[in-house]
Amino acid sequence: MSLLPILSDDQMQPASRAVIDDIRATRKTDFVNNFWRVIAHDPVLLKRTWENVKQVMGPGTIDPLVKEMIYVAVSVANNCEYCIRSHTAAARAKGLTDPQLAELMAIVAMASTTNRLAIGLQVPVDEAFLPKPS
Amino acid sequence: MSLLPILSDDQMQPASRAVIDDIRATRKTDFVNNFWRVIAHDPVLLKRTWENVKQVMGPGTIDPLVKEMIYVAVSVANNCEYCIRSHTAAARAKGLTDPQLAELMAIVAMASTTNRLAIGLQVPVDEAFLPKPS
Amino acid sequence: MSLLPILSDDQMQPASRAVIDDIRATRKTDFVNNFWRVIAHDPVLLKRTWENVKQVMGPGTIDPLVKEMIYVAVSVANNCEYCIRSHTAAARAKGLTDPQLAELMAIVAMASTTNRLAIGLQVPVDEAFLPKPS
Amino acid sequence: MSLLPILSDDQMQPASRAVIDDIRATRKTDFVNNFWRVIAHDPVLLKRTWENVKQVMGPGTIDPLVKEMIYVAVSVANNCEYCIRSHTAAARAKGLTDPQLAELMAIVAMASTTNRLAIGLQVPVDEAFLPKPS
Amino acid sequence: MSLLPILSDDQMQPASRAVIDDIRATRKTDFVNNFWRVIAHDPVLLKRTWENVKQVMGPGTIDPLVKEMIYVAVSVANNCEYCIRSHTAAARAKGLTDPQLAELMAIVAMASTTNRLAIGLQVPVDEAFLPKPS
Amino acid sequence: MSLLPILSDDQMQPASRAVIDDIRATRKTDFVNNFWRVIAHDPVLLKRTWENVKQVMGPGTIDPLVKEMIYVAVSVANNCEYCIRSHTAAARAKGLTDPQLAELMAIVAMASTTNRLAIGLQVPVDEAFLPKPS
Repeated sequence: MSLLPILSDDQMQPASRAVIDDIRATRKTDFVNNFWRVIAHDPVLLKRTWENVKQVMGPGTIDPLVKEMIYVAVSVANNCEYCIRSHTAAARAKGLTDPQLAELMAIVAMASTTNRLAIGLQVPVDEAFLPKPS
Repeated sequence: MSLLPILSDDQMQPASRAVIDDIRATRKTDFVNNFWRVIAHDPVLLKRTWENVKQVMGPGTIDPLVKEMIYVAVSVANNCEYCIRSHTAAARAKGLTDPQLAELMAIVAMASTTNRLAIGLQVPVDEAFLPKPS
Repeated sequence: MSLLPILSDDQMQPASRAVIDDIRATRKTDFVNNFWRVIAHDPVLLKRTWENVKQVMGPGTIDPLVKEMIYVAVSVANNCEYCIRSHTAAARAKGLTDPQLAELMAIVAMASTTNRLAIGLQVPVDEAFLPKPS
Repeated sequence: MSLLPILSDDQMQPASRAVIDDIRATRKTDFVNNFWRVIAHDPVLLKRTWENVKQVMGPGTIDPLVKEMIYVAVSVANNCEYCIRSHTAAARAKGLTDPQLAELMAIVAMASTTNRLAIGLQVPVDEAFLPKPS
Repeated sequence: MSLLPILSDDQMQPASRAVIDDIRATRKTDFVNNFWRVIAHDPVLLKRTWENVKQVMGPGTIDPLVKEMIYVAVSVANNCEYCIRSHTAAARAKGLTDPQLAELMAIVAMASTTNRLAIGLQVPVDEAFLPKPS
Repeated sequence: MSLLPILSDDQMQPASRAVIDDIRATRKTDFVNNFWRVIAHDPVLLKRTWENVKQVMGPGTIDPLVKEMIYVAVSVANNCEYCIRSHTAAARAKGLTDPQLAELMAIVAMASTTNRLAIGLQVPVDEAFLPKPS
C-alpha cells in the first residue's frame, strides 16, 4: 500500500486531472498507472514530473527503445521494483525481446562487478581517460 | 593511488601477462588501462573478469554502442568515477556524440527522480505490469 | 518474515526487557514496533541502538519534526521500506502534513537528479565551495 | 575535470545564456557555479533542471534552510561530493551553524545504521504503520 | 513474480540443463533455487554466473563461512532481499549461529554509520593510509 | 579538505580530548586518524561513535580480522574511499594478505553481480529460504 492514497479520476483536483488527461492523450491509451495516481496528490509535482518525463523520453538523439533500456538499467541499480516492472513493460511494448532483456541484465550485473572492483581497489583514472585541457 | 600496485608488464606473473596480451590482441591496441593492471595482481580474478567482459560486451542482441551507454548509466548510478570515465571513453570511440552524452545523463537523472518518488511513496506495482501466470 | 523471530515481551531476556520498558516510558505509549522486537534478540545491540537513537533524535539544535524529515529522506535514498513507513508515521505524529510529505519527496527526488548529473558528468567542485585554509 | 567542458558565458548558446541570466537574477549574485556551466552544454537540460530546482527549492510548506538540510542529507546518502559541498555552502548561507551541521550528519549516520539493520534482518512492517484501507 | 518465468528442468534448453546438473552435483543436493531457474533462460549467462560463483566461493585463502558472511554483508548494503535470504541460509548451513548473525548485522550497521560520517564531512584520507610510492 | 576543520589535540574541548586519549590507550598507539579529529568537533558525536565502534569491533563471536573484512566489504558497497583505506589498513595490521585482499574484493564484486541479477529479474524468494512459522 502506498503512503498516499491511489487517486481515482474522480478524487483528483482539476489541475491533476488535466495532467492525467494529457498522459492518456500522449500515450494513446485509457490506462494510467499507479505512479501518476499517487503523485496526483500534488498537482505541481505531478505536472512537473510528467512534463519532464515527456521531454526526456521524447524524440532526441537516442532511440526510444534504447532510452527505456537505460531507464531499466538505472532502476535496477537503484533497486526500484516499481520502476523495473513498469519500464520493462514499456520496453517490451517498444519491442524488447527476451534475449535482449537477459543481455541487458547481464550488462548491468557486469558493470556492477567492475564498478565494485574499481571502487574497492581505488584504481586511479588513466591519463588517457581524462578530458584534454582546451 | 591504488590499494594494490599498478603492475607494468614486467612485474606481472606469466598467467596475468597472457591475459594482458589477449586484451591487446582483442582491442587491437597496445594501451592497457589501469583497471586491468591492478587486478593483474591476481591472475585468476584478471582472467575471469576479462573473459566475462569480453563475453558480455561482445556480439549479441544489443548494439555495441548501446551496451556502452548502459554500462555508463549503471556506473553513474553506482558512483564509480573510474568506470564513468573509462566507459565514456569507450562509448566515444564507438561514436557517442556530445548531444547523446547529455541526453544519456538526462535519462539517468530522470530515472533517479522517479525511482526515488516510487520508492519514497511506496507505490504498489500495477496488476498490468506483473507477469501473467503461465 | 524476519530473519530472526519477533519477540513478545515474555520471550525477551531481562536485559532486553529493560530497554523495551525504557522505550515505552520515553515514548509514553505501550506500543513497541517490530524493529525493536527483532533486535531485542541481542540485548547489547538493542541497548546500544536505542541509546543512540534517543540521543540523536532527542533535544538538540534541530527541530524534532525536521529531524524526522531528514530521517525519512535518508531512508528513501537507502530504499528501506520499513524505515520509510515507521519514520513517516513518526513525522506525521509530530505534525507532518500531506503537502509537506509531498514536498519532502519532491526534494529527495530533485536531489537524486542533480546528484546523478553532478556525478555522471564529474563536475569539479568550485573554489568557492571549498573550506578556506586556516 | 568534467566530462564536458565548463562553459564561460561567451561559450554558451543564447538559450543557455538566458537561463544563466535567470539564475543570476534569482539568486541576486553574479557567481554561477560549475554545475550549471557544465549542463549549459544542453540548453533544454539546463532549462528543465533550473526550472525544477527553482520550483522545488522555492517557497512552499517547508522552511528554506530545512530544504537545504534535506538536500545535503540525500547527497550524503548518494555520496555526491559536489552536491554535499555546494548545498552545505547554500545551507550555511541560510544560517546553518557548525553544531547543526554536526547534528545533521549524526542523523544521516544514525538513519543509515537502522536502515541496514531493518533491511539486513528483513523486519516486517507493523500493521500500525500501514495506511488504513479507505 | 519474476520478470522471466521460473523454469522447471523440463522447460530448459540442454545447455542450461547441463549447468543445473553441475549445480546439483557440486552442492550434493537435488534442490536448485529460483535464482538459477530464472537465469537459466539464457544458457550463457547461467553458465558464466555459475562458473564464477563456483570459483569465487570455492577453496581459496578465506574460510567458506567467512565468504558467506561477506556475501550477506554486501547483499544488505545493496538491499537485495533474495540475496540476503539465500546467502543467510547458506551461511547457516555452514554453521552461522544466531549471535553471529546479530553481530554480523551490527558490523554492517556500524560501517554504514561511519561511512556516512566520513562521506558527509568529506574527511581526507590520512597520509598513513595511502600506499607508499614504490 | 574536510567540511569541518581537522582538530589537533590542542584545539579540542576537554570532553573530546578525553575520548582521543581513550582511542590512544585502547589502540596502544599515539597516532589518531583524521576521522576522529573531524568528528571531535562535536564531543557527544565523538564519544557515541567511539563507544559504539569499540563495542561492535571488540571481542565477540566473530574473529577480529573477519570483522575488518566485513567492514571493508560494506565500505566498498557504500563507495567510501576513506573507510576503504582506513579499514584495509586495519585489516592488514591484523594479518590480511594480498591474496586475501584480492579474494575479498572478488567476493564483493561477485555479490554485486548476483545482487543486481536477482533485483533486476525480481526473482521470488524460495520457500526453502523463508523462516519456518513458529
